[in-house]
Amino acid sequence: MGVRAGIVVTGTEVLTGRVSDRNGPWVSERLGELGIEVSHITCVGDRPGDLASALRFLEGDGVDLIVTTGGLGPTADDLTAAVVGEFAGAEMELDTAMEAKIARIVAEFARRFRLDPEGVREGTRKQAMVPVGGVPIDPQGTAPGIAMAIRDLVAIVLPGPPRELQGMWPRALATTPVEHLLTRAEPYLSESIRMFNLAESTLAKTLREIEQRVDLTAIEVTTCLRGGSELEIDLRFRASETAQAAALVDGLRDAHAKHIYSDAGESIDQVVAEGLLGAAATIAVAESCTGGLLAARLTNRPGSSRYFHGGVVAYSNAAKQSLLGVPAELIAAHGAVSPQVAEAMADGAIKRFGTTIGVGLTGVAGPDGGSEGKPIGYVCLCAKDSAGRVVARDPEIPGARNDIRDRSVAAALHLVRRLLADDGTAAPF
Amino acid sequence: MGVRAGIVVTGTEVLTGRVSDRNGPWVSERLGELGIEVSHITCVGDRPGDLASALRFLEGDGVDLIVTTGGLGPTADDLTAAVVGEFAGAEMELDTAMEAKIARIVAEFARRFRLDPEGVREGTRKQAMVPVGGVPIDPQGTAPGIAMAIRDLVAIVLPGPPRELQGMWPRALATTPVEHLLTRAEPYLSESIRMFNLAESTLAKTLREIEQRVDLTAIEVTTCLRGGSELEIDLRFRASETAQAAALVDGLRDAHAKHIYSDAGESIDQVVAEGLLGAAATIAVAESCTGGLLAARLTNRPGSSRYFHGGVVAYSNAAKQSLLGVPAELIAAHGAVSPQVAEAMADGAIKRFGTTIGVGLTGVAGPDGGSEGKPIGYVCLCAKDSAGRVVARDPEIPGARNDIRDRSVAAALHLVRRLLADDGTAAPF
Repeated sequence: MGVRAGIVVTGTEVLTGRVSDRNGPWVSERLGELGIEVSHITCVGDRPGDLASALRFLEGDGVDLIVTTGGLGPTADDLTAAVVGEFAGAEMELDTAMEAKIARIVAEFARRFRLDPEGVREGTRKQAMVPVGGVPIDPQGTAPGIAMAIRDLVAIVLPGPPRELQGMWPRALATTPVEHLLTRAEPYLSESIRMFNLAESTLAKTLREIEQRVDLTAIEVTTCLRGGSELEIDLRFRASETAQAAALVDGLRDAHAKHIYSDAGESIDQVVAEGLLGAAATIAVAESCTGGLLAARLTNRPGSSRYFHGGVVAYSNAAKQSLLGVPAELIAAHGAVSPQVAEAMADGAIKRFGTTIGVGLTGVAGPDGGSEGKPIGYVCLCAKDSAGRVVARDPEIPGARNDIRDRSVAAALHLVRRLLADDGTAAPF
Repeated sequence: MGVRAGIVVTGTEVLTGRVSDRNGPWVSERLGELGIEVSHITCVGDRPGDLASALRFLEGDGVDLIVTTGGLGPTADDLTAAVVGEFAGAEMELDTAMEAKIARIVAEFARRFRLDPEGVREGTRKQAMVPVGGVPIDPQGTAPGIAMAIRDLVAIVLPGPPRELQGMWPRALATTPVEHLLTRAEPYLSESIRMFNLAESTLAKTLREIEQRVDLTAIEVTTCLRGGSELEIDLRFRASETAQAAALVDGLRDAHAKHIYSDAGESIDQVVAEGLLGAAATIAVAESCTGGLLAARLTNRPGSSRYFHGGVVAYSNAAKQSLLGVPAELIAAHGAVSPQVAEAMADGAIKRFGTTIGVGLTGVAGPDGGSEGKPIGYVCLCAKDSAGRVVARDPEIPGARNDIRDRSVAAALHLVRRLLADDGTAAPF
């Protein structure tokens, strides 16, 4: 008898497709970790009738928990608290302590933006209205949440801005009604393995083979192919299935060790960052068709200045020559998109930035510029270190311009990982 | 009496939050354009019971149209067609023409990946099963869709991969049951205005003022703040409200002309690209804290090589000096993050890449590195042309590392727009 939940996301911008919903997936992941099975995520607009019908539907469907997001702002069209109150059959009452708390939070804001004091007072009062029997949850921004037992279920009511919602989540879990519900949920354990450049069909075959020896029926296996080349395999299981899950992980490791770049859920970005730090290496990049994306990805992490020195985006041949020292004859002989030029770009990056590792990347991202020998998607990648060790590839990457750019960056990161690993376990390309 | 719709997105990856749903918002936008009001978007997993209950809920809620996405694959856990058939009370029957069509599509694929022929035949047969009374929709990939009148509503059943779904959408609209339904919907007209650096509260005030003279009650106005600085105002209205909508647009233009960078929905990227092409200008960038994001954004568009020559990501001071020619004394005197260094970086970009425009961008993205005079979020931006004209700003940008990086890039693009416009209408910064 597990705990089942439904999530109701409110907001016309989400419903009309203008803004993509970040709260439903986030709450769903958190509930999954707690061992709560989510049956529905429903988006509704700002019409109270649609929210009410979603709540009634979920109750009729027998869920034990409803989490709502959004609709807790100070204006009249933010109606979630009132609709939940009506759903519970409870009067709304003013929580004066909460009113004072919100007033303190908005005071500074109201002063800075010279907001109308009467409007601010009204909005504050509205946000401090709680259904009788509901437990208020302290706000992260200005909107408090509510946790409330309603007949056979518990409702958690949270605001829409993702940072506010996420900040308030631990407080929501600590309220009495939710704590009580959580005693009935058995948290899942999980394992995560990430592979590079393994076909899904090959993985499926391996899973079938493992299934011959290990009972996997109670293990939830999700595979997800990201960016065309990274295969994420996530296992979710109860504690009683720990041995089977371990056998499955071992089986995957035996079959595909060379493809695995992470077995604790780390991204390739994290693996490369840690590899560079661990090797006390420094890196610079020279890129053409990715136009700065590789440098941007490497500098995305805080503290990346410890290993990243810089990059050159050399779109024109002149820039390849003057900024990276790629010989004009090399370009004339092999073309700007060639393994030779990619390696010369890596050399140039090392030399110009004085790093221990350089990456060169040149390719045809399209939609124009493809030729017979070098079609759209043809990308030359080279990772090189100052000792002269080289890992290079020139794949034809499928997809549209953006796919080609993104996948080229991912491929470059995996190349750097391989250069750093140099231990025979590196992923084949 | 408009047409109301519900959307049901199936897929455990979406429900568990692993993958974000791209289909619900896309379908919702398309329906909105057709004048169909979406009341709910519901995500369910691969459990047939949850899909069936979502269908029953929407029917009970009185929708005229249900669009489902996903669950049409060849494997046994893809159950949408069968569940919709059961919901309709219709037997499933094999569409032999469709079976032959799918077999032709998968033949090449099966050969390349040496798939088991028996399994392929089974999967193909499964995908060609259509509820009696349903109209099959030709596949974009291998999965056909279904359009079907069911009691008082119409169901459109489409596959999950966004490209397949989007490719099949026009064919779904052209089926008899959907065409018939669409005669009852009155399409909306729309207007879109985009502004830079205008406070939402100021816009709200202007809207209130316009409301004194123009009846806006029948115009749906959605405002959306993107990246902290770009305010998108979208109007949706029936043909009968055209005059009021035009008056609203005029009112916004009168009040905020200097903030408007687009009045036909173009992105700032598009405005800058067209501005550069129109002026026959070329551009190079020199960036520090954005680490390549500005170059990546400028090269995101096909054909950007016509104006973009290249960029330098100069993270270290040494790189700023050697690759961009920023004088060491300038860095020593003012610091690496200073308006002076930003301008010297713009100069360096122009000189090294031989362009007519250069952009310099240096800042503190955090989470470390902030100081009293130069806190985290302090960013110096400079757009300069080879004639010596300069547009420069050094705002303090709020948010976390990623926000600061993204907003710096947006600010740089708006700076370039301003340099290009030079007509007095440019947005204040």
